[in-house]
Parts: sequence; structure tokens; C-alpha cells
Amino acid sequence: MTEPTAAATDRRSFLGGAAIGASLLAPGIAGAAARSPAAAIRKAAEAQHEANIKRLRDWIALPTIAAEGRNVEEGCAMMMAMAKEAGFQQVTKIPTDGVPGVFATMDNGASKTLGLYFMYDVKQFDPKEWSSPPLESRIVDKPGFGKSLIGRGAANQKGPESAMLAALHAIRAAGQKPPVNLVLVCEGEEEIGSPHFTQIVRRPEVVAALKKAAGVIIPSSWQSASDGGLVVNLGAKGVIELELIAGGEYSDRFPAHDLHSSNKSLVESPAWHLVEALASLVTPDGNGPAIDGWMDRVAPLTPRQKALIADSAAKRDPANELKTLGVKHFYGDIPWPAALERAAALPTINIEGLVGGYTGPGGKTIIPGKVTAKLDMRLVPDQTMEDCVAKLKAHLQKRGFGDVQVNVTGGYDPTQTDENSALIKAELAAYQRAGIKTSIYPRLTGSWPGYIFTSAPVSLPAGQFGFGASGGAHAPDEYFVVEPSNPKVLSYDGAVAGFADFLFQVAATR
Amino acid sequence: MTEPTAAATDRRSFLGGAAIGASLLAPGIAGAAARSPAAAIRKAAEAQHEANIKRLRDWIALPTIAAEGRNVEEGCAMMMAMAKEAGFQQVTKIPTDGVPGVFATMDNGASKTLGLYFMYDVKQFDPKEWSSPPLESRIVDKPGFGKSLIGRGAANQKGPESAMLAALHAIRAAGQKPPVNLVLVCEGEEEIGSPHFTQIVRRPEVVAALKKAAGVIIPSSWQSASDGGLVVNLGAKGVIELELIAGGEYSDRFPAHDLHSSNKSLVESPAWHLVEALASLVTPDGNGPAIDGWMDRVAPLTPRQKALIADSAAKRDPANELKTLGVKHFYGDIPWPAALERAAALPTINIEGLVGGYTGPGGKTIIPGKVTAKLDMRLVPDQTMEDCVAKLKAHLQKRGFGDVQVNVTGGYDPTQTDENSALIKAELAAYQRAGIKTSIYPRLTGSWPGYIFTSAPVSLPAGQFGFGASGGAHAPDEYFVVEPSNPKVLSYDGAVAGFADFLFQVAATR
Repeated sequence: MTEPTAAATDRRSFLGGAAIGASLLAPGIAGAAARSPAAAIRKAAEAQHEANIKRLRDWIALPTIAAEGRNVEEGCAMMMAMAKEAGFQQVTKIPTDGVPGVFATMDNGASKTLGLYFMYDVKQFDPKEWSSPPLESRIVDKPGFGKSLIGRGAANQKGPESAMLAALHAIRAAGQKPPVNLVLVCEGEEEIGSPHFTQIVRRPEVVAALKKAAGVIIPSSWQSASDGGLVVNLGAKGVIELELIAGGEYSDRFPAHDLHSSNKSLVESPAWHLVEALASLVTPDGNGPAIDGWMDRVAPLTPRQKALIADSAAKRDPANELKTLGVKHFYGDIPWPAALERAAALPTINIEGLVGGYTGPGGKTIIPGKVTAKLDMRLVPDQTMEDCVAKLKAHLQKRGFGDVQVNVTGGYDPTQTDENSALIKAELAAYQRAGIKTSIYPRLTGSWPGYIFTSAPVSLPAGQFGFGASGGAHAPDEYFVVEPSNPKVLSYDGAVAGFADFLFQVAATR
Repeated sequence: MTEPTAAATDRRSFLGGAAIGASLLAPGIAGAAARSPAAAIRKAAEAQHEANIKRLRDWIALPTIAAEGRNVEEGCAMMMAMAKEAGFQQVTKIPTDGVPGVFATMDNGASKTLGLYFMYDVKQFDPKEWSSPPLESRIVDKPGFGKSLIGRGAANQKGPESAMLAALHAIRAAGQKPPVNLVLVCEGEEEIGSPHFTQIVRRPEVVAALKKAAGVIIPSSWQSASDGGLVVNLGAKGVIELELIAGGEYSDRFPAHDLHSSNKSLVESPAWHLVEALASLVTPDGNGPAIDGWMDRVAPLTPRQKALIADSAAKRDPANELKTLGVKHFYGDIPWPAALERAAALPTINIEGLVGGYTGPGGKTIIPGKVTAKLDMRLVPDQTMEDCVAKLKAHLQKRGFGDVQVNVTGGYDPTQTDENSALIKAELAAYQRAGIKTSIYPRLTGSWPGYIFTSAPVSLPAGQFGFGASGGAHAPDEYFVVEPSNPKVLSYDGAVAGFADFLFQVAATR
């Protein structure tokens, strides 16, 4: 999954208990406030705080990791149990050729339906790298953030997903019924590129259920920890995850096994071959794609997209962004608006990892028999995964690297959602009611398998939505800020209430 | 240490028991045969076979690995004990800033002295990669080779070193005295680039002892398994072992820790930076040095060196060489004589290993906070390690890679020994007496810390010498062929007798 680059905005009061005034209502949702029992739901969320945090902690304690085959059945069973407890009347395990998914529906007799996408898997982790045990969900004081729950999945994605489930508990505890019907689709392979997600979503009964929905969200918690701001992304980049492998297994020019390096003058090395192949994929500074034809299908930014980026740049503080990223420079030291435009427009080619030959302490004088580069390539409209994989292979073939093995491990196409869809309107309304001024950005620089919702046959608006602050996705010490020190950021309870309110905005939005 | 590319020659009978005729004597060593009680020594070696193999097995069972700090004191103590048992009267542990060395002398009242260099450490190993446990020294039938002892150090260097020690035992058991005085210097850090070897060899008492010697050998066992041929190398390439590291620790353009790869369009990646830096070090095919000024001090091959290479090429079978290397092509498919010339003349730049970012199964969408390439660079005369490290750093600095950390972990200069020295003459004589026709090659393509012997203040001829067949240095299933299936290859007992005979040739050679 993805991590935001947070938006910087001012923030007014919100579900911290303040009354919601008509002045906060967005156009097109007049009357919604009356139907949103915000105060009672917030109170219920606070009363259920311990139970909600326990649910999240129990979930984090059971990590499903598809790449390692870890807790596959157990994670699916827990996902199903949590859906049932949250009020879904129909909860079905959906087998796939990989990790099973879950399909659940909640009929609330409403005229509107909302789709929810959950991933119940998490990214791999190495406990040695964590300052707090990754499965224990300890709540620590995180300087500059506040009391934060530390655990694998806290941000990506169990933290915000648990807040969405808690919102359903809170609505019920407040004596209400959710104002929309819900369709929930879950997978346990998001972190390996969702290779079997079509086998879940494209089942006839799932397509039929989703087609009634106004759109699909994946719960997120991406408020800027510094100013509480949020960005609404009108889509997301696609991604291809793959390995490039060079070695004796694929070419008889290279040794099949590690060979003493004194032979380097006689024998060609797969390590150098891979380095040269990698270098051919990018511009000489290593930062732009240079694969033959890679940019052919890249749609230029529209004037509206450029205007949104300019607005976003004006609202967001580049110093904050650099701090969040942990660097002192944006790529090439280009100005902040240009950096944001580049971020939206550019397909990226990233090295996730390099491994081959001797990797231990000190050295070992060998020519490696095999070396591997793990890459991810982010795609923008109108690129497609299928076309890009073909272009990569043709590029390698043409340049003398046809013996470099291309092992695609996952990925999907980019997505795009209409700014004027009811889903985006409801999202903006909910953020506005929470006092969070937002900026709109053409697309998330990260990826999620939303193409399955935005493309045929489902063809729905889809994207990230949610409250609260979290971070460290895929990294050690992943966190969710449960009790923020910054009043501009919603607490966990505030996020629960915010999700509940969002359902009322979906119900009210034309 | 190094691994040979074996020489192809015919072989006549040898210490397999055959009488040594005057016709086998090399010019300049007339009379040596009379003083070499070869048959009695061979018989003693056979009688001591079990004890000799047990000594080797015990040694292999105690691996000293400097990179891991493993068995440092224990390995030194065993080295000292073995020297004493072999008859060295004076055996001293020499402390260094790293792993201790050993200095030992054996005064046999002879007019000539020979220096012996031993390494008592071995290369790291991963038992999972071995078909036979690497410390158990099992003797297996190795198809095409014969009964072979499998163990870490069997070839590099405990196998041949143990045969040299066994030769001293055999001479004594045959009622003889070694015909030369001996000076033994041992280190336990050869496999990490001998960083403290000067602290052993440049001690006044060691220098004084060595200066009496006709030369220094490191025992080796590099007979071609296919035809028993051997190469006398008139020197060896030098080596620099180093790491190149890029990451947030060294530049604030890069993230200090792994960062979600969705930020690739905003943030520069140390992985690409390292790939580009690596690519700048070599020619576009990845096989020739391209570091600024790297070739400036490379001495061109002399006409004599070219003639030796042509002779070597004619005597050696390229098909055998390819088979030994496990590849189907020499670099660039150049003809065999050109390949051998390139091997002698060219300094190499090799990637030993690449490691950084995510290296586990599947993928992980991160920008690595740090990536490392482990390199070895082989040097030829008149390159020096000091000058080359400076050139590498200047090259990186000039090309925008000044933030790539250069971490030199070991290395030393190349060596050169005069073809007309007494040491080389004695080596050729001993090989000839063993019925092994040899070829002479300008330099070993591998490296050993012989520069400490060939340079001032010691300034001696130095190089590899020995009998028998072994292989797999630094690799899994390292082996020594104890009972060869090919009659052209000397057995372990034959190698023991050969080392003994060599001492007599040193004694007799002017």
C-alpha cells in the first residue's frame, strides 16, 4: 500500500465535541447535518475506546504475510469474524488461487450503497529493526506526535480499517443504523501486488453487489501530523513489482555458481551485466525512466490537474514534506510546485533491493553466480501493466540484456476518479465538516489495486478516505497516533466518529 | 587466496615409485638426485598417510575466520603446535593489531634457507550450500577426479600446507634431515586481505631470518585434474577489497531509512546512485576498468612475457579451462591466446556482492536507505594499492559520486619474481623430476600477500609451489584429491614426497 505526502491546511474545530454548524456543510449536502447524530456517535466511540483499541491490537498480533505464507487462514478467519461483529449480515470466504478473500454485505434498507475495500495482510518486518515489538501494539509517547500505537499494520492498513469497523459499532451503540448499505471486499495479498484480487471482485455476485455502490473507499489515516491537513487524490499510480535476475542459470557466459574472482579477466560477470542492464532503464542521474517507449502512453497533465497541483503546492509546506520524508532535498532541488507536478506526472522506476554474491561482513573474492534486483515501477494513466512489461522486455532484448530474467511478481494498472463524482463530493463534505481544509491532487503517488473497481465491469469511483495520523508504512516502528499532541489532528476516537459521519455524507450526497 | 587456471601438459612418471633418472634433472641442479632419497621418503609418506590425513582433518575441523572472529586464538595455537611437531625448534606467536601470526625457524645446519608462508585462516562458508559437511573432511568419490577430501580449506590452503608439513615428518621418518633451513611465517587474516601481515613480517628478527632465504613459497596443489599440468607464475596480481556504500548516512539527498517507494518521484534513491557510480567504473560491457587514470601505471607485457603466454596457450587446452570455470565462453569470445594475454595483462574490477534494501522473498515497495556493493580490484605491476585507492576516490568525486563511501577492507600490491631466480629454477626442477611438464605464466590472476616478501626490506623471490589437485576455493564443496583417478595427477602422498624433493632441489640449485 501507499503512504501519503500529507497536505498542509488550516483546521477548524471538529468532532472533538464541537457542534457542527450549517456553515461547515458543503454545497449539495444540505440537510445532512440533521441526519448525522454526530455527538451521540462520538460519545459512543469514546465509550468503546478500550474495546476498539483491543480489536486493533488483536488484529496486529496476527500478521498475515502472503510473501511468507504466514497466518493466511487465521487472518482470513479473523477478518470474517470482525465483519460479522461489525454488523455485516452476509460474510463469505472467497477462495482464490492464492490467499483467500472475504466478501460481505450489510443491508441497511438504505437507498445508497458504499463499497469498502480492506486488505487484511501486512508488509514483512524484521523485529530487530523496531524500537517497540512490532506485534505488541505498545502505546508510546512519540515526540512531536503524541501517544501512538506502534505495530505492523498500524498505518497500513489495520489502524484506519479498524476505525472504520469501530464506526459501525459506534453507530449501533448510539442507537442508529448505518445510513447506507455496505459492500465489503477484502484480500490478503495486497502487499504482494494483489495477484488474485480479480478472482474475488469479478465474481458475478460481487460485481452485482458493487455495481449498486456510489463508490469504493479504502480507509486511510493520512492527516499531516504537523497541521492536520489532508489531500484528496483523484486516483493512484499503478505498479509493477518484478525481479531482474542475471546469472549462469540464464546464460552460459556466466558461471553457474560463485567462482573465484581471480577469473574475472577470463569470465564475464552477471553482476556487472545486471548493473549495466539497470543503468539502461533510467536517465543518467538514475531518476527518470529511460525504457524504450516508456513515456509513449503517459497522458500529459490537463490544465485542471495543473491547477489542482498549483493549489495543492500553495497549501502545503515543503519544509514539512521534507521533514516527513527524512531528506533535505527534493529530486534535483527543483522548486516545490515543480516537484509536486513531477510527482503526479512521472512514472517511476525504483530499486527496492539488490542482492547477490557475498553479502556478509567483510569481503569474499568471488564472481557471483547470480544477482537479483527487485524493482517497482509506478505507472500513470494511460500506461498499463501489460504494455509496460512488454516494453521492458523488448528494451532489455534490444540492448543485449535478453538473458536478464524478468520475473514479474505482481502489479496493476493506474486509476483515475472523477472530481465531480458523488464519492469525491461526500469525501470533501466529510473533511469540511471535520474542519479539515483539503487540497485535491490528481493522483496518489503510491498504488493500490483500485483499478479493479475503477475499470469495467464495476467502473466505480474509488480512492483512499479517512481521518487521523499514521505513518511508517513498510518501515520499522509503523504507528497510528491514538492521542495526538497536535489539536489539529483527529484522535483515534475522532477518526471513528469521522468515518461514521462520512457514511451520512454519502447518504446525503447527490 | 587464489585459484589457478591449470596448465595442460603431458606428464611422465613420477614419485609413484618410479626411479628418478638423471634425464629428468634440470640444468643447474646436477648432483641433486643423489642427495634426494626420494624412494625412502615416499615410503615414509605412505606409512604416515593416516596420521597426515588426520592432521589435515583436525585442522579443517577448527576453522579460523577473521571476518567472523572465529577460532582466532585456537587456530593460532594449533598452527604453533603443528610447526613444533614438524620440527621447528623456535615457534613464536606474533601479536598484531588483529589476528596473531606465527614465526618459526628450523635450523638444519644447511647452507641454504627457504621461506615458507602459511595462512591458517579459511574463507567463510555456509554449510547449507555444501553436499558434505564443510568441517567433517569426508572422503568422497568425486566423479572424474577420484577419492577427494571435502572441507573448507582443503584447497585453500590447509590441504597443500599440511602436505608440506607432512614432508618434514616424512624426511625425518626416512632417517634424514631437511636439506635446507626453514623460516615459517603464518598469518590468520589472509582471507580478509592480510591487513596486519606487515606487523609480522617486518619485525627485525623476522626480516633478519627471511633475508637469508633463497625465496618464499606458499604451498599449493594446483595440478590440472584433467592432465596433471602445472603453471609456474612469475608473480601475482595485487588486490584491493572494498565496499562502496550509498545512503542517507552519507548524503542528505537520500532517506536515512527505508522510505515508501511512492516517494520515488520526489526523493533521490541511493540504490540508483550506487548503480550509476558502479557503471562509471567499467567499460560499457562491464568488463574493463574505466576509472580515471586506472591504466596509467599498468606496465605493458614484455616480449618475453608475451612469448611465455603464447607457449602457455599452446600447452593448455581451452576446453578444459572452460569446463573448470563452468562457463561456455571466455570474455568476448576472444581467441584462447588473446584470452590468456588479457588475463595476465588486465587489472580487473569485480563485484563480489550487492546488498541493500529489501532482499527477502517477493518484493517490498521501499526506497532503500542504504545500499552496498562489495568489490575486489586486482592490480598488475606497476599499479599500487595506495595509488589506486586515491584514483578511485578522485574518479567518484569528479563524477558526482563523492558522497559514495569508499570503505577499504584490505589488499596489497602486485608481485613479480625473476624467471632466473634460484627459487624458480628449483621449482621447475622439482616439477620436471616429478614428470610434470610446466608452462610459465607472467603472473597469477589471483592474489596473495607475497608483496611483503618481494618488496623491501625482504626483497625475495616468492610464489606458489606444490603438487596435487584441489579446487573449490571460496566455494562450497572445496576439495583435495587424495587418491586421483587420473594417473597424471599426484596423490596426497605423492604431493608430500614432492614437497620433500623440492627442498632437495632448493638445496642443490645455484
